[in-house]
Amino acid sequence: MDKLGDHISHQFDEELEEIRNRVMQMGGIVEQQLSDAIKALTDRDEALAEIVVTSDYKVNALEVQIDEECTQIIAKRQPAASDLRLVIAVIKTITDLERIGDEAERIGRMAMHFAEAKSDNKMITGIIHLGERVHHMLHDSLDAFARMDVERAIEVAHQDLKIDKQYESILRELMTYMMEDPRSIPEVVNMMWSARALERIGDRARNICEYVIYLVKGKDVRHISLEQVERDTRKE
Amino acid sequence: MDKLGDHISHQFDEELEEIRNRVMQMGGIVEQQLSDAIKALTDRDEALAEIVVTSDYKVNALEVQIDEECTQIIAKRQPAASDLRLVIAVIKTITDLERIGDEAERIGRMAMHFAEAKSDNKMITGIIHLGERVHHMLHDSLDAFARMDVERAIEVAHQDLKIDKQYESILRELMTYMMEDPRSIPEVVNMMWSARALERIGDRARNICEYVIYLVKGKDVRHISLEQVERDTRKE
Repeated sequence: MDKLGDHISHQFDEELEEIRNRVMQMGGIVEQQLSDAIKALTDRDEALAEIVVTSDYKVNALEVQIDEECTQIIAKRQPAASDLRLVIAVIKTITDLERIGDEAERIGRMAMHFAEAKSDNKMITGIIHLGERVHHMLHDSLDAFARMDVERAIEVAHQDLKIDKQYESILRELMTYMMEDPRSIPEVVNMMWSARALERIGDRARNICEYVIYLVKGKDVRHISLEQVERDTRKE
Repeated sequence: MDKLGDHISHQFDEELEEIRNRVMQMGGIVEQQLSDAIKALTDRDEALAEIVVTSDYKVNALEVQIDEECTQIIAKRQPAASDLRLVIAVIKTITDLERIGDEAERIGRMAMHFAEAKSDNKMITGIIHLGERVHHMLHDSLDAFARMDVERAIEVAHQDLKIDKQYESILRELMTYMMEDPRSIPEVVNMMWSARALERIGDRARNICEYVIYLVKGKDVRHISLEQVERDTRKE
């Protein structure tokens, strides 16, 4: 683990710690949004879906606030090396968290439609399963962020491949449904958007893992293969 | 327009200018990617589509490079106020540009499918029209960035509403096609993804406009309505 401390200013340490806590707080809300959205889909719970849709403002407010704190820290403390990387990783992480919140809101909207419709439960099973896997990945990526654990981050980033495969298989299944029963098209298209939203959340959770690697290793891994990063990490 | 100059260090000015030029260079490549992707769709040009799909690495490389330069500038120059805002706006802008490149790549992939398929030209007309509008908006948002023109940025951000409306209407049209001819479903679903990719590019172009406003006004406008920003800008 990287040493983030050793500052002359004790207050600076506290500010950095405060920012990390804020990110975890924002991550917790976003995670809750996602699990509520999936639960609303599963239980056809319109009231819960509405809560998801209407509480995105909390995530937005936190993003603006943390962003502002980061800017102030850079201006006031002029951090260098790993501290600066932390602040920049935070700025990037909260952007992804905010967008995950947007996707959860989208899923919440779909859940509101499903709650009204009389659709086949069978169709939705795959999406719920995908949702659980994505939620798991988001949780783990935030965990890797909290611990600044590079190996865990690499491991979690790998989960994105499985999510992509499962997503592709759901799409094929949904297309078959549509072809078999064209009247189901509008509803199945809605499900496709939900599946897509989940797949995108997986991408963003992977981004968060990559920021952890960047933060600890000082290496930008966004456009390198995970295998390469893994090899490099083992060598060190 | 904001005064970005007045530095003791002439070299610092040059570095900031260099970063802005880099962003414009990256923006130019992304714009080209998008217009090539749309052209490949229009002309069913498989070779051009392939160029779009295989040249995303240029955009990725530029993102990593500019990001690195920004981090170094912060560490070395410890910029304050408007200079710091510029650097942070650049970090955010290039993230959006890179994702626009990803979406253009996706459209390129769809264009490769269309080039092979014998699909109805009628279906694709709406998407091409949307593509042109989105390309226009991206161009204008980069223009607002280059000039640091807040009023233009507000105006351009407004275009996103029209894009969203056009996108919704294309979706309705595509769903009707699918219901009328279920055999067309796999291909129409591909078109839906293209339309979605274009809509997302519109969102990201809007983000760029918002960074311009943030940069010049020092106000975070991401979660405020454009009308509010417009009123505030007029008041000043």
